[in-house]
Amino acid sequence: MSKTLFYRLLLAALLLPLWAAAQAPAITRVNPTNWFVGMKNPNVQLLVYGPNAGTLTYTITYPGVKLTKASTVENPNYAFLDLTIAATAKPGKVSIVGKKGAQTVTRTWELLPRNPAAKGQGVTQADFIYLAMPDRFANGDPSNDKVASMADPNADRTNPFYRHGGDLQGAAQRIGYLKDLGVTAVWFTPVLENDQPLTNEGGAMRSAYHGYGFTDHYQIDRRLGGNAAYKAYVQQAHAAGLKVVQDAVYNHVGINHWFVRDLPMKSWLHQWPTYTNTSYRQQPITDPHSAYIDRKVTLDGWFVPFLPDLNQQNPYVANFLIQHALWTVETFGVDAWRIDTYMYNDQPFMNRCNAALLQEYPKIHIFGESAVNNVVDQAYYVRNKVAFPFKSNQPGGLDFVVENAMLAGLREVGGKDATGWDNGTQRLYQALAQDGLYVAPEKLVTFLDNHDHNRFLSEVGEDISKFKMGLTWLLTTRGIPSMYYGTEILMKNYKDPSDAEVRRDFPGGWPEDKENKFTAAGRNAAENDAFNFVRTLATYRKTHPTLSSGKLMQYLPENGLYAYFRYDATGTVMVATNSTDKPATLPTARFSERMKGFTKARNVLTGETLSDIKTLQLPAKTAVVLELLK
Amino acid sequence: MSKTLFYRLLLAALLLPLWAAAQAPAITRVNPTNWFVGMKNPNVQLLVYGPNAGTLTYTITYPGVKLTKASTVENPNYAFLDLTIAATAKPGKVSIVGKKGAQTVTRTWELLPRNPAAKGQGVTQADFIYLAMPDRFANGDPSNDKVASMADPNADRTNPFYRHGGDLQGAAQRIGYLKDLGVTAVWFTPVLENDQPLTNEGGAMRSAYHGYGFTDHYQIDRRLGGNAAYKAYVQQAHAAGLKVVQDAVYNHVGINHWFVRDLPMKSWLHQWPTYTNTSYRQQPITDPHSAYIDRKVTLDGWFVPFLPDLNQQNPYVANFLIQHALWTVETFGVDAWRIDTYMYNDQPFMNRCNAALLQEYPKIHIFGESAVNNVVDQAYYVRNKVAFPFKSNQPGGLDFVVENAMLAGLREVGGKDATGWDNGTQRLYQALAQDGLYVAPEKLVTFLDNHDHNRFLSEVGEDISKFKMGLTWLLTTRGIPSMYYGTEILMKNYKDPSDAEVRRDFPGGWPEDKENKFTAAGRNAAENDAFNFVRTLATYRKTHPTLSSGKLMQYLPENGLYAYFRYDATGTVMVATNSTDKPATLPTARFSERMKGFTKARNVLTGETLSDIKTLQLPAKTAVVLELLK
Repeated sequence: MSKTLFYRLLLAALLLPLWAAAQAPAITRVNPTNWFVGMKNPNVQLLVYGPNAGTLTYTITYPGVKLTKASTVENPNYAFLDLTIAATAKPGKVSIVGKKGAQTVTRTWELLPRNPAAKGQGVTQADFIYLAMPDRFANGDPSNDKVASMADPNADRTNPFYRHGGDLQGAAQRIGYLKDLGVTAVWFTPVLENDQPLTNEGGAMRSAYHGYGFTDHYQIDRRLGGNAAYKAYVQQAHAAGLKVVQDAVYNHVGINHWFVRDLPMKSWLHQWPTYTNTSYRQQPITDPHSAYIDRKVTLDGWFVPFLPDLNQQNPYVANFLIQHALWTVETFGVDAWRIDTYMYNDQPFMNRCNAALLQEYPKIHIFGESAVNNVVDQAYYVRNKVAFPFKSNQPGGLDFVVENAMLAGLREVGGKDATGWDNGTQRLYQALAQDGLYVAPEKLVTFLDNHDHNRFLSEVGEDISKFKMGLTWLLTTRGIPSMYYGTEILMKNYKDPSDAEVRRDFPGGWPEDKENKFTAAGRNAAENDAFNFVRTLATYRKTHPTLSSGKLMQYLPENGLYAYFRYDATGTVMVATNSTDKPATLPTARFSERMKGFTKARNVLTGETLSDIKTLQLPAKTAVVLELLK
Repeated sequence: MSKTLFYRLLLAALLLPLWAAAQAPAITRVNPTNWFVGMKNPNVQLLVYGPNAGTLTYTITYPGVKLTKASTVENPNYAFLDLTIAATAKPGKVSIVGKKGAQTVTRTWELLPRNPAAKGQGVTQADFIYLAMPDRFANGDPSNDKVASMADPNADRTNPFYRHGGDLQGAAQRIGYLKDLGVTAVWFTPVLENDQPLTNEGGAMRSAYHGYGFTDHYQIDRRLGGNAAYKAYVQQAHAAGLKVVQDAVYNHVGINHWFVRDLPMKSWLHQWPTYTNTSYRQQPITDPHSAYIDRKVTLDGWFVPFLPDLNQQNPYVANFLIQHALWTVETFGVDAWRIDTYMYNDQPFMNRCNAALLQEYPKIHIFGESAVNNVVDQAYYVRNKVAFPFKSNQPGGLDFVVENAMLAGLREVGGKDATGWDNGTQRLYQALAQDGLYVAPEKLVTFLDNHDHNRFLSEVGEDISKFKMGLTWLLTTRGIPSMYYGTEILMKNYKDPSDAEVRRDFPGGWPEDKENKFTAAGRNAAENDAFNFVRTLATYRKTHPTLSSGKLMQYLPENGLYAYFRYDATGTVMVATNSTDKPATLPTARFSERMKGFTKARNVLTGETLSDIKTLQLPAKTAVVLELLK
């Protein structure tokens, strides 16, 4: 716990009894803010909040709705009401009635019909995900750039730590751009309200423009356009054939979250005698030799001092989070669910949460962020083939192992290690060769960078050959590819001196921008070349099920040459990489298990037809994509 | 297949019919050379060899012995006789009678009683294995240094590729030395006959002093003392309380093996249209995306041109190898079974072979050599918790992952990376943290080097602090520790220019040696310091079950300080490593789960008593071993 929070809680504990006794009971919030009839799970637990709301005796009289239990907790301002909603219940306004002596408090709460647009379509290998940070992508409504009543009322594009004014309206205007690029799904960093202050902690700026510090689960940040803009965005995306991935955070909330400012109970958060940070280490969780304290620090330590760590073993917290997930999919109609800091969450809770989402939305895809450095630990957090004491039910996950293998391998491409025993393309080959630990490796989401990493182009030393090689692997090997915004226009940078360096504004996203790289005319030749490269591959992928549902077969790299195939009944695509700095000749007899019956090929990137594929000529530092032809 | 072998086989194919017709049938060999009454498995298959031995019709008349099947194969010089031996059969001489027309051939073959000394005691964490190369350890009988009738009739200690004359008699004279050092088990590189020529292949010398090219499975190499010397060695070792580990090779034999010079059938070996080497890669075996040809090259490619690759899917080959394993344990009384090039063998065959050994000798330990670079692949070759398509039943294995982690970590000790996120002691910590994939990680055999690797002292830059740190980890963490001969007297070297550099003679092992490092007087101060260091730890380990059967608990390294504990009902041992180049203070409150109730400690290496263990003072680059006291 931070010192600030500790003193705030201490003050509250001292003053609350006096103040509480003086206050007439009232209800100022109910979460979920509404619910739906016809959910598969008939139960919902309402968090009812207001001065002395916990001192009221509650009744609900509504056909098909039964109040099965009302619970009070340490803080008298909270009541938790367990409802069961019969299949026969009709949409309508429900009166929540609380009584204390002669006093009656009534709050109207709504049961809505289910949202027919909320299909939770999921993402699969047929998709190509575009990750954007809404504050930094496009500003469609300058009027919402700052909100004077919020903890951080500033906006200033010249300061990397301030809000820049990007919003969902701006992103909606660029749906066509993404469609043209071949993208099929958009993943925004979190859009929920982050009413957090901008602080300077010993010279380190702490801002919330990234969205990972929620302060109200039922409010999309007004600076991004609020709930209405998010609903509109999803509708427009769906209309254009784009899916939407929601970025969810269960592990922590912003220190300004309304329920942190008036905690329901001490055990709502993970509390420590003195502030304790997580170790950011996964090993204590999977290690059969680990100590209790190391496991506790990983799981219950705080991510940073201003993001209090939720205690998901507290059943009220768990219900709150699970219901919010269901409410979000139903309300906004999002298609997939990316989970932040997955490995720091209580894993039995995560399984219940995943199961609840999958019960209501069987096709939804769930993929968490567990920044690990080996396949054993990565497998632990997804459906796997290992008899770990704990069995995860998560369908997918972000593939940090493959990211690391691709980057480390690409750094060696063209150099003396390109042909090394465990180097260059061997790294990607060897990472994929460990896929036997996963139930469904093809459901992992692959990437080359993200908002927390150095930008891909910088990681490969701004070498366009390596840049294209990495993108080729990303878009042709197994997994669901995702790409960080701006990669297609050669945005670059290292995280040093701050994360903000890899979160620069997309040029052209602001009305005042001089350059507009959303258009071919606004991009220079190199940028257009990169854009067209991504578009060509993404479009090919989108229109060829071999890449989206075909199996993978990879061959042991030899002399820095790495070949793999995607194949199914409809066709075979060969990807052949020459990772050396010299042109190479690759005889293909060795690949007969996949090439038998094919006599020609079409180079997907150049359109060229190869009339003889017995031997391939591979340019230096190049991955070629060949559609094999009879 | 090598060209030489190809022409030899071609010639044989052309000439054999003529020669064979002219030759009167005879039996010159029967393998196994004898068998035993009272084995759990009543079946044995005899390989009967001799000119036209396959043209005979066989009968066996002996109480309790039934000839159930006689098989002929491509080469008329072979017959395979399946016998069933009843539980009631008595030891005695069995006549194998072969008839062809009027001609009768009789061969006497013996059924022996079971060997009461053949217990297959196994090795466990209570053991400390010493790996020695008999030709390079000690010469007890100079009369057997060379054998004029053998393919390589030379011996010359001044030439690294020639035989040096070490033998089992010499090793037997040093049993007391090993006992004094704290060793409990000896593992010799293979002792079977290697009647291979010494060749110069394009400047690369190919010698067989290492023992991995068998030419007769039923003959211990005469230059090591033959069968009698091996029996005597095991008896003397057992009498002294030392166990013996046999180094087994199933994957290949020497090109001079008698059955390779007159192959029973083409499919006895893995045959290729042109010579094909194994890729030495494990990935194609475990990779769910691998190609058939890559799997075939790994498994069926030859290890080197002069070691033909046995086809263990041939049932005659499989029977031959399995029976030889059983015969060896029963005949010589060895206690454990190390398997060479484990991952290149047919794995279903390995499972049958392991099961056969474990059926007769339930306590025997089996640990194979699979030189892999990650835990997933290492787990594949031992009993594991992964639902791989193939499930290994191997009880143990050599722990290449931990070797690599210790060496890479030690190289970083004391440097700028000692406190790195994934460096220094983190490497060992993270390797052990993946133990959840194994059924029994404590049954893996740990090591710091071996006859195929650079010597440990050289790997750590001849830094004695790192040398002691590594040995401390080896002798206190989980697993069955093994040490390569000469480590205790600071033998060093790199494999460059040849493996022979790390297989130098143990000084004092030869009568003519001027120095004798088998004695304290013959060792210099630094060598005695190393020897005593190993002896102190090994002796402590031998006498303290906490280290040999206690659990392991390890804590996440912090600031380059790594602490772990071995613990059981009889006690707790703490190992605390300071991997930095500065003295460090380690508060122990964090370790209360293991230290609660203990107030003092004894430093196992110095004998010093620590009266206060709330804070430990750790010298730079040091691992301390503390027995905790109440």
